[in-house]
Amino acid sequence: MKKLLTHINSPADLQKLPLEKLPQLAQDLREFIIDIVAVKEGHLGASLGVVELTIALHYVFDVPNDKLIWDVGHQAYGHKILTGRKEIFDTNRQLGGISGFPKRSESEYDDFGTGHSSTSISAILGMALASKLNGENNRQHIAVVGDASIASGMAFEGLNHLGVTDVNALIVLNDNAIGIDPSVGALKKYLTNVKSGTAKDENIFECLNLDYSGPIDGHNLPLLIQELERLKSVKGPKLLHIITTKGKGLKKAEENQVVYHAPGKFDKVTGERIKKTVEPLPPKYQDVFGHTLVELAEKNKKIVGITPAMPTGSSLKFMMEKIPERAFDVGIAEQHAVTLAAGMATQGLIPFCNIYSTFLQRAYDQVIHDVALQKLPVIFCLDRAGLVGQDGPTHHGVFDLAYLRCIPNLTIFSPMNEMELRNIMYTAQLGLDGPIAIRYPRGRGVLLEWDNNFEPIAIGTARCLKEGSKIAVLTIGHIGNVVAKMLTEINQPESIGHYDMRFVKPLDEKTLLRIYTQYDHIITVEDGCAMGGFGSAILEFANKEKLNKSVKIFGVPDRFVEHGTILETHRMAGIDFEAIKSYIQSTLNQ
Amino acid sequence: MKKLLTHINSPADLQKLPLEKLPQLAQDLREFIIDIVAVKEGHLGASLGVVELTIALHYVFDVPNDKLIWDVGHQAYGHKILTGRKEIFDTNRQLGGISGFPKRSESEYDDFGTGHSSTSISAILGMALASKLNGENNRQHIAVVGDASIASGMAFEGLNHLGVTDVNALIVLNDNAIGIDPSVGALKKYLTNVKSGTAKDENIFECLNLDYSGPIDGHNLPLLIQELERLKSVKGPKLLHIITTKGKGLKKAEENQVVYHAPGKFDKVTGERIKKTVEPLPPKYQDVFGHTLVELAEKNKKIVGITPAMPTGSSLKFMMEKIPERAFDVGIAEQHAVTLAAGMATQGLIPFCNIYSTFLQRAYDQVIHDVALQKLPVIFCLDRAGLVGQDGPTHHGVFDLAYLRCIPNLTIFSPMNEMELRNIMYTAQLGLDGPIAIRYPRGRGVLLEWDNNFEPIAIGTARCLKEGSKIAVLTIGHIGNVVAKMLTEINQPESIGHYDMRFVKPLDEKTLLRIYTQYDHIITVEDGCAMGGFGSAILEFANKEKLNKSVKIFGVPDRFVEHGTILETHRMAGIDFEAIKSYIQSTLNQ
Repeated sequence: MKKLLTHINSPADLQKLPLEKLPQLAQDLREFIIDIVAVKEGHLGASLGVVELTIALHYVFDVPNDKLIWDVGHQAYGHKILTGRKEIFDTNRQLGGISGFPKRSESEYDDFGTGHSSTSISAILGMALASKLNGENNRQHIAVVGDASIASGMAFEGLNHLGVTDVNALIVLNDNAIGIDPSVGALKKYLTNVKSGTAKDENIFECLNLDYSGPIDGHNLPLLIQELERLKSVKGPKLLHIITTKGKGLKKAEENQVVYHAPGKFDKVTGERIKKTVEPLPPKYQDVFGHTLVELAEKNKKIVGITPAMPTGSSLKFMMEKIPERAFDVGIAEQHAVTLAAGMATQGLIPFCNIYSTFLQRAYDQVIHDVALQKLPVIFCLDRAGLVGQDGPTHHGVFDLAYLRCIPNLTIFSPMNEMELRNIMYTAQLGLDGPIAIRYPRGRGVLLEWDNNFEPIAIGTARCLKEGSKIAVLTIGHIGNVVAKMLTEINQPESIGHYDMRFVKPLDEKTLLRIYTQYDHIITVEDGCAMGGFGSAILEFANKEKLNKSVKIFGVPDRFVEHGTILETHRMAGIDFEAIKSYIQSTLNQ
Repeated sequence: MKKLLTHINSPADLQKLPLEKLPQLAQDLREFIIDIVAVKEGHLGASLGVVELTIALHYVFDVPNDKLIWDVGHQAYGHKILTGRKEIFDTNRQLGGISGFPKRSESEYDDFGTGHSSTSISAILGMALASKLNGENNRQHIAVVGDASIASGMAFEGLNHLGVTDVNALIVLNDNAIGIDPSVGALKKYLTNVKSGTAKDENIFECLNLDYSGPIDGHNLPLLIQELERLKSVKGPKLLHIITTKGKGLKKAEENQVVYHAPGKFDKVTGERIKKTVEPLPPKYQDVFGHTLVELAEKNKKIVGITPAMPTGSSLKFMMEKIPERAFDVGIAEQHAVTLAAGMATQGLIPFCNIYSTFLQRAYDQVIHDVALQKLPVIFCLDRAGLVGQDGPTHHGVFDLAYLRCIPNLTIFSPMNEMELRNIMYTAQLGLDGPIAIRYPRGRGVLLEWDNNFEPIAIGTARCLKEGSKIAVLTIGHIGNVVAKMLTEINQPESIGHYDMRFVKPLDEKTLLRIYTQYDHIITVEDGCAMGGFGSAILEFANKEKLNKSVKIFGVPDRFVEHGTILETHRMAGIDFEAIKSYIQSTLNQ
């Protein structure tokens, strides 16, 4: 059969189809997504779950005149394909290709860039209020938000405002009972009751003054279209509750929704994931964190683990499986996660609070006000720090060193390898005088043998990896391995000293004083923003000590870095192997 | 009649009283608070509203064995007085005296420090989970949270987790329909319906799986005690809804709840506020902001104003009165406020989003992810930047320059006086290429005549206030006036140049290059944290340009600064008139 999708290059094309053809289009769209993601990788399950919703929305509404926001944005592949990006969909998440998330600069159909969760209600309300002020009284405003995302505080703030306005806004609650990991919390429990018909009369969204309808089957296209058509003429703020299945249409993805959130390459027919056969590789930092936490927590009964909705991504799942009573997935609730940890710490528990670097931005106030000000010994483990690659600028964890460095009482550490991560975790749970942030990147370390015996790390001490005479390279964290490798390739390696500074705060001032005396040139290397980051800390130290020597700072420049592989993003930021090597070589040759 | 309060120095003393004496104690406590706050100033209305609740909680529960957290903490005066701080209550908010907020280091009865809103549910849940793990099965955990604070996203996150636990936690919802300004939003509307009996059967808190009771009269001591006694034996998480009147017991405070939140000095019998008769003074920056915004918005119809729950404090109330359709109080919802502004900006509106510096910490991710990444021209007005004085370390707005400076696309400006504030507001609404943050302190400017004609400010340009030869003093914002005054008192003023840098980002590099050439010594002065702040920006510039000259940085050192007057906090931070003058004088004498 000739594929319908071939002829769809815009919502206008879609709207020309008769209603009865739409289920066929849904099948085409699903196959198209599967075919490409199977080969090119990306986020699969979320977009498969909203194929019918995507078609229905673009059939009923008139985007971009009407406004449409996809919360988080993992589920927007179908939207991208139907809005003129079908031919370039195979460039998804690649350097120079389309973004894995909605992005304003990419298409007029992407009304608001997303990536972090729970922003869509606030943004759509802003647009709807603007339409009212601008006299656009017939414009519709739609936000699609999942049940995991609507449980986050920011979404509640948006609903709380929305409910007292009279704007034309429709919130589509896409309830599939899962975010990346299964949804948690009282609201999830309540929604389950609603779906099973055991909830009482009044609805929680009606309590918030919204016109609630549903729940309806989100895979039933005629029903969806009928309901959206009806809601189009309902004035004021409204919420439509639809039930969908994440991964819909690919059996394996429906059965294993966590893995098929982003399964990597897979067989497009069977769904079977394609395992790469590779030589033994070093472990992921995530796994080192997860296993080490279990190892420590089995001995130290005061240890608890907390994750805001990332048990799989962070590997806290290992502790959740082995010691469930002390491991907490609190849902997409970074603010709560941090202050929960603070409350626990007041009672003598030792909380390991694992949050992705980019998401700790959501809990910045809580780190300052609830943890650091009270000097509570919470152990923050900041996963996916630095440039994260294909998720792009919404997800790069590049600001953490700058935004954390100014907080009093806080220790900041970044491990260069797996053993360092293990040892600082061990050290932290022995008892610190205040909180600590331990930041490490996504992906693999460098050691095949990493299961070392624990050794405590003295706070504020650097490691000299190699003495030198002319140039001192000061690195922080995993990127130090790039420098270590380079030193095996460079001319005159004996001239170069390499220091793994480990602590951004407190700095190892004794070692720094020695470095400033010993070397002519000083170079710093970090995978965070240069402005206010580690290099800046070195400048502050040198200024305080009146050591007037210029420092070459390798760090992420003052702009948002687009998506690409991690290596490509490092190149874009000018902090890659070649850039550093070339600078050092030319300095040596001076 | 002999005052009962005289004999109460701890909750144990209170618990010895027979039930029928408690109303008398409530009267004593109310009088005591009024007597002292009338003279010493402080937050009045909130504590008057919970006198009965405070007595009831300490009568029924056994704090500090049981855990008690006061959300925000404005209402904790009665708690402080009943828990051993009666004799020193008159030192409230003074240098070296007790804090205006609960504070862990101050008393074992203050289980968790508060100041920012909506943290109490997360913190008490952390404590309750810890008690469970620690085998403390009979311990009670109570959080008192107002209806304005429970509407904030973070509180919802806490409730969402609490509802799926089995801990002994009691949330007392103190519903007085007001925060500092009247409460807003759909939840407030719902609670109003509950109180009037027009809400439907199921309760919103029951939807979240909490054992709900109420609403009951929070000024009826026997009823309160009876209900708390009952709840003490109810296992699991529960919420008690009580209705109180802010300012209860002082007629004027009940009638004008906004003003009597913190009325300044007043007559303790009549409640009449004591107006100081003073010479004409420069206006408050807040009023300059408020009036200027109205002036601009009357001409530019694209301007909208947004405040998260601070219409009075920020003076957005002027716009809310004159142009209500374009001025929005969104409640305690900083995250929502910022992304709402972002949504509006996508549609061509020009949002002035006014948030206190310390509270923008709550919306840090939204500034990065929703505004700066999308380069949306939102105009952030950061009120109460710098050291705020008597509210102390929870409220100092000292981190903003450091945490904002690392964000790409963001312009950062700080006005030295009222005209500068007006002109940058004028400039910003003309249209910028991205967002701007304008930070200014609480309190008065320096100009009696401030209602100037608008003049645009060129982005990234400093003002040379005075040329010199030997020492260049670079200041940012209002604190520049301290330096300007000092220059009238110092020896050899001709040696000293003074530059109001205005923009922390982008820096005026041209002027800086000239300064580095022209002067031997460079001094920077800011009222924000030195680590990563304005001075650090100058170091980064100089390092980039290989200008090796030490800079003396006056900024807030790397510790939390306690409460006191603004002058006293500046002294504690070493950024006061005398400290700067003495440094300059000794440098001149070298």
